[in-house]
Amino acid sequence: MRTLDLNCDIGESFGAWSVGEDAAMLDLVSTANIACGFHAGDPMVMRDTIRLARERGVSIGAHPSFFDRFGFGRRRISGEPPEDLEAQLIYQIVAMQGMAEVYGHKMTHVKTHGALGNMAAVDPDLARVCARAVAAVDRSLVYVSLPYSETYAAAEAAGLTVACEIYADRTYTDKGELTPRSQPGAVIHDPAQSLDQVLEMVLNGHIPTTGGKRLPVDPATLCVHGDTPGAVGITRNLRGALEAEGIVIAPFARG
Amino acid sequence: MRTLDLNCDIGESFGAWSVGEDAAMLDLVSTANIACGFHAGDPMVMRDTIRLARERGVSIGAHPSFFDRFGFGRRRISGEPPEDLEAQLIYQIVAMQGMAEVYGHKMTHVKTHGALGNMAAVDPDLARVCARAVAAVDRSLVYVSLPYSETYAAAEAAGLTVACEIYADRTYTDKGELTPRSQPGAVIHDPAQSLDQVLEMVLNGHIPTTGGKRLPVDPATLCVHGDTPGAVGITRNLRGALEAEGIVIAPFARG
Amino acid sequence: MRTLDLNCDIGESFGAWSVGEDAAMLDLVSTANIACGFHAGDPMVMRDTIRLARERGVSIGAHPSFFDRFGFGRRRISGEPPEDLEAQLIYQIVAMQGMAEVYGHKMTHVKTHGALGNMAAVDPDLARVCARAVAAVDRSLVYVSLPYSETYAAAEAAGLTVACEIYADRTYTDKGELTPRSQPGAVIHDPAQSLDQVLEMVLNGHIPTTGGKRLPVDPATLCVHGDTPGAVGITRNLRGALEAEGIVIAPFARG
Amino acid sequence: MRTLDLNCDIGESFGAWSVGEDAAMLDLVSTANIACGFHAGDPMVMRDTIRLARERGVSIGAHPSFFDRFGFGRRRISGEPPEDLEAQLIYQIVAMQGMAEVYGHKMTHVKTHGALGNMAAVDPDLARVCARAVAAVDRSLVYVSLPYSETYAAAEAAGLTVACEIYADRTYTDKGELTPRSQPGAVIHDPAQSLDQVLEMVLNGHIPTTGGKRLPVDPATLCVHGDTPGAVGITRNLRGALEAEGIVIAPFARG
Repeated sequence: MRTLDLNCDIGESFGAWSVGEDAAMLDLVSTANIACGFHAGDPMVMRDTIRLARERGVSIGAHPSFFDRFGFGRRRISGEPPEDLEAQLIYQIVAMQGMAEVYGHKMTHVKTHGALGNMAAVDPDLARVCARAVAAVDRSLVYVSLPYSETYAAAEAAGLTVACEIYADRTYTDKGELTPRSQPGAVIHDPAQSLDQVLEMVLNGHIPTTGGKRLPVDPATLCVHGDTPGAVGITRNLRGALEAEGIVIAPFARG
Repeated sequence: MRTLDLNCDIGESFGAWSVGEDAAMLDLVSTANIACGFHAGDPMVMRDTIRLARERGVSIGAHPSFFDRFGFGRRRISGEPPEDLEAQLIYQIVAMQGMAEVYGHKMTHVKTHGALGNMAAVDPDLARVCARAVAAVDRSLVYVSLPYSETYAAAEAAGLTVACEIYADRTYTDKGELTPRSQPGAVIHDPAQSLDQVLEMVLNGHIPTTGGKRLPVDPATLCVHGDTPGAVGITRNLRGALEAEGIVIAPFARG
Repeated sequence: MRTLDLNCDIGESFGAWSVGEDAAMLDLVSTANIACGFHAGDPMVMRDTIRLARERGVSIGAHPSFFDRFGFGRRRISGEPPEDLEAQLIYQIVAMQGMAEVYGHKMTHVKTHGALGNMAAVDPDLARVCARAVAAVDRSLVYVSLPYSETYAAAEAAGLTVACEIYADRTYTDKGELTPRSQPGAVIHDPAQSLDQVLEMVLNGHIPTTGGKRLPVDPATLCVHGDTPGAVGITRNLRGALEAEGIVIAPFARG
Repeated sequence: MRTLDLNCDIGESFGAWSVGEDAAMLDLVSTANIACGFHAGDPMVMRDTIRLARERGVSIGAHPSFFDRFGFGRRRISGEPPEDLEAQLIYQIVAMQGMAEVYGHKMTHVKTHGALGNMAAVDPDLARVCARAVAAVDRSLVYVSLPYSETYAAAEAAGLTVACEIYADRTYTDKGELTPRSQPGAVIHDPAQSLDQVLEMVLNGHIPTTGGKRLPVDPATLCVHGDTPGAVGITRNLRGALEAEGIVIAPFARG
């Protein structure tokens, strides 16, 4: 019996601004990455999201970002001393960890958000900053990362457990990286093709690449999106199709 | 032998903006209240302040505030649901607690900042929100509060240990409250008079009031200011004078 | 032929967070109050909103607020020197005025937002700060205000033209103020009753009060809401019903 | 008789955080670049700075930046659509222009701040965004720029008057760019050497480069710093030395 986690970014509302169908998505995923207040989220959103996840048995983790609420963590930011960015990540991770404890849940992992995640995937120095921040807080925290990335390597080198993350709706280059969105064919729009790709990765242990290669992979978690139109329906269908193939949806770590 | 703690607000810089002579003040006080990033402070300032305090054996605590960086937590803010303010305080306290752990120190207490502290001192509902937030995080945290205040009562009712805080440079009304700054005689400018007031409170256990009363008090900690001109010199003199009277300066709780 | 303006708060998205159906509302109203970036809005939202309004011939104004993005300008804030709050309002008003010019429209009015508006309506000092800020920028700007309020009096005293604003869905006390939302009967939920109240005010020049009085009124503009469920439909029906009574919907001032 | 402007970044305090000796620097310079609230400054700081400059006959301009208060505009930020950055710059420029009018002064120029300025100097697309923003607000605004830069070229191409800016304390590469601070010899610490460089540029019309070249230059304004230790004394000495050489210190544009 094959097990797979479904993870989703959750808790990205802020103050009076509400986004996403968090409750509906939390009915479908097994792991939630919760914004920590730097690019999105605030103490009330964190509290509510933690409670919703706890009630559903969904594992939770911190989803830290650059300090960039205006840009929702999507602006690429550089020029800070590495140790300063490390402190910013530590702050977010401990805030999330502490909030989880107060509101009756246990944080199990960290996944970096947006531009930070994209930049760290290909920048070994930045990847090391991220890994160091997680390790500084708690070495038992799982680091969620794409395979074939600098973050994966840095997290392993830091002695962290890494949960290998795959995408259903993105194609892969021959190097095992996501095809940049700026290139044609980067996004898979056909649900059947998405499902095939996931099954190939999960059941056969291969990433199919745009150059026709097959790269070995041992996926722990599949990233699903909660902020696109129809996200809930797409996720429900995908989960149903995976379960129909005998795959059990369960968190990679229990909180 | 009588012991007294000296506490000071520290770590109130933000980003490129630096205020206060934190290192010099940390050489003189025994307890530091560190800003948590809502009215002042940021992850780097918190990190540096925690390390400076740890090196000097200074106990540290969270100094939470309204979410109001623009107003430095001095604007009086109302109209939020109590449970939302509670979540905001919890976030700040756990962030500080977690940062302390990562950077090798242990947080021992909480003291509210600015307008929040002033408002809670006379508003029992607000005082209960503050006490609940501290208790929700960790019942072993000490709550620093003026005596004869709603915060003192609420913290005790919540089962928290309260460290009774006194002022050297403020006079007291017959109700035991600080004379509002808007009134004449609110601030004591004469160092000798300040010292006399502290000695009366610490050695004799009485608060002298503007109406000529003497209210019983058992002070644990004396608040000193780090952001006024000449703060370091004033504090050094005050500490020296207290020690000359045989009073030992030491934290009310060890981190 | 009787003319009435319909005004609505618009442009309250921020960064990645989108709220309201601005384009649909701008098809229905004649005047838009645009957030200036302090409680909501940002330069891109302002640009887009100005352009949408210009294309539809909708007049625009600044909708300034306390500096409080976290609280969406709904937190009650006090304790600032009046001249500082005045500077904050001036900044917002000139920013909106300048953006309007750059993007091809002309700003005609100012309406205060949220807690600032509510507080100023009953606080003569705060009302004077608001009026002074508008007058300091441009004495030809129209001040939108409830009648029977401190803001109305202060704006007139400052020599500003005031556009008298009425509500369809709120009842009025015998003093001519809106019944506080905390009291029963504050909100009118029945569309027919809302319409009757508006017609009584517009056609007969009377505010019906909860105590059975009729207070004289000469309404210039009716406030409609864009952020409630079904807002577009409610507004479309209300506008249709007003037009069916022969009332022409048009801005109180042309940009 | 040769004339030269001295320009300085001013008004970079924020809320309770105060930096720089603005009043003292405004006694020495002829032009001030005032922060607009995005990386530093706020409405009160802008008001006070405008008034100080007006009283001294110092010309003023907007000093816009990335939306990055946390990083003081020093973080390198990318990934935004150019038209969005343009709107952010326009907002800052019109806010400054409007505040200047309200407080009795006239804004004459724009100079970009920090990372934005550094990035635009070598990025033609970013340089065009900056030039477009200024031109969109007011084509009579002078654009302050280093020579031999993309910003200089873009501003001229946009039809703007450019004030050629030079540095006393930085060396120049053979391409006419500032030697990056990461390289040895980037900063000139010797006042005599600084003065020689300025005189060579102002009186002889040449930039001396680190490779021994002499590049033609027609400087309009010399950038001085207000945020370094001893800034006031350094600036006073430099101004005195320039005046002793018969150079008249005066703004490149009168407000």
